[in-house]
Amino acid sequence: MANQLRRLADRPDLCCINTATLGFRLPISVTIDAIARAGFGAITPWRREVESSDAATVSRQIRDAGLNVAAYCRSSFLPAENSVEFFKNLDLNRRALDEAALLGAQSFVMVVGSLVPGSRDLSAVRMQVEEGIRILLEYARSIGVKLALEPLHPMYASDRSCLNTLEQCLDLIDRAETGSDRGPRHLGVALDVYHVWWDPKLTDQVKRAGKDDRILAFHVCDWLASTQDLLMDRGMMGDGVVDIPGIRNTVEDAGYAGVVEVEIFSKRWWSTPIDEVLSIAGERLRTAC
Amino acid sequence: MANQLRRLADRPDLCCINTATLGFRLPISVTIDAIARAGFGAITPWRREVESSDAATVSRQIRDAGLNVAAYCRSSFLPAENSVEFFKNLDLNRRALDEAALLGAQSFVMVVGSLVPGSRDLSAVRMQVEEGIRILLEYARSIGVKLALEPLHPMYASDRSCLNTLEQCLDLIDRAETGSDRGPRHLGVALDVYHVWWDPKLTDQVKRAGKDDRILAFHVCDWLASTQDLLMDRGMMGDGVVDIPGIRNTVEDAGYAGVVEVEIFSKRWWSTPIDEVLSIAGERLRTAC
Repeated sequence: MANQLRRLADRPDLCCINTATLGFRLPISVTIDAIARAGFGAITPWRREVESSDAATVSRQIRDAGLNVAAYCRSSFLPAENSVEFFKNLDLNRRALDEAALLGAQSFVMVVGSLVPGSRDLSAVRMQVEEGIRILLEYARSIGVKLALEPLHPMYASDRSCLNTLEQCLDLIDRAETGSDRGPRHLGVALDVYHVWWDPKLTDQVKRAGKDDRILAFHVCDWLASTQDLLMDRGMMGDGVVDIPGIRNTVEDAGYAGVVEVEIFSKRWWSTPIDEVLSIAGERLRTAC
Repeated sequence: MANQLRRLADRPDLCCINTATLGFRLPISVTIDAIARAGFGAITPWRREVESSDAATVSRQIRDAGLNVAAYCRSSFLPAENSVEFFKNLDLNRRALDEAALLGAQSFVMVVGSLVPGSRDLSAVRMQVEEGIRILLEYARSIGVKLALEPLHPMYASDRSCLNTLEQCLDLIDRAETGSDRGPRHLGVALDVYHVWWDPKLTDQVKRAGKDDRILAFHVCDWLASTQDLLMDRGMMGDGVVDIPGIRNTVEDAGYAGVVEVEIFSKRWWSTPIDEVLSIAGERLRTAC
């Protein structure tokens, strides 16, 4: 099985760092140079970094460093208590989509949000999110940016995302974008092993996603056997229990040809010197993914 | 919708305490009396309590207190590194099934375990677990005890259970127990709102489970909006974000006629006086479930 895997050691262009891995400790210009110097070929920056400068400048800095922009992180949460707030949320996302276009990002990562405070109606928020995605899809299509829906681990279902499985995302996509009559596809998924590794239907749904060319991003980190924190205790690849090469094989076998992107939220790694994080992440891409 | 719900205030016989809620602080005989005194009609004891005494004595104490035994918690983990260990695990479960029969428990709750240390092969462990369930089912049938597979939240997929969705459990059940030709059914599910509330397919799968008469237990607690610990921070019903009445309605509408069982793993509630926990749990069964 593993012999079908692309050899990342020979393909720095496939090795990507999501800047969240570095803990947002440095200005984006410094981060860009560190990532390029460490031998990665691609970067996924976050809005907080780009919006503290401007997208055109950041885009130029990234190209000057010889990097590609894999994706742009991430959407403002969509759910709102009323329609005024909902349309405000859509506007925030349209502005971010404009930045994604300026950056030349392959896709815009959608972490959609979930229950607004005081609500327990998960079905209602899922419908509102689907409506928001349909509206944003029109805009994304008009400016040539792809939306990558990221299913988040079910432990984030109350606060970060009401999209919690790949199957759920693909069902939504099937309803929202009905196919070739709409021209090139602009709606797909961002797959993060941390969020999906447990899913009994993962292999089937990855095949389904690949068949329709819906896999827009592939993120790696690891699930630590004794996870201490719901958000900030993700592991470096190889330190946990996820069969990352197995999942990558399934994803690539389904037709995914994009970068392998390291994204790690972790108190530990966010307090490790950045050059050390980059060096270890590069090594683990070659040996544990 | 909610008007179909059974009125728990009128039905103490439907109100059950899983003794894990009380933190295993007292001898089982004392726990039994406290639960009966607080007005509950049923109890689900744990093996650590029963095995520190003996099942026949505990069974008599429970009847003398006027309580029914809803279920018996829980299975020894099934996965093992080799077949000697695997058969040892099966034997531990057979012994527990004997105790369940002695207690007159409606079902034996199966929390099946997951990856053994050093392994990353979730598919393999799922196959081993299915094999173990098939073997135990034969024994359970022979002594008239029902096995209630409990799908656990995906955040426990590495250590506590490789069964993580209701659909996955029902698929396994369909394969393992093919129907009426085998006589009365002895394989079903224990549904805990904490583990399944996030599932986009919950309503459909509950209907499926109900149609085949597979719902053997229904557990309540709550998911706290800012959960601090993966195991020990479950909420009292009403303190979190789960639409418990909505899920209960779906479950009862699907034909479930058993008890509503309170099970809360929580540092907070385990350090609250037991009579206070029982009083609040009883109140919340009436007002928040």
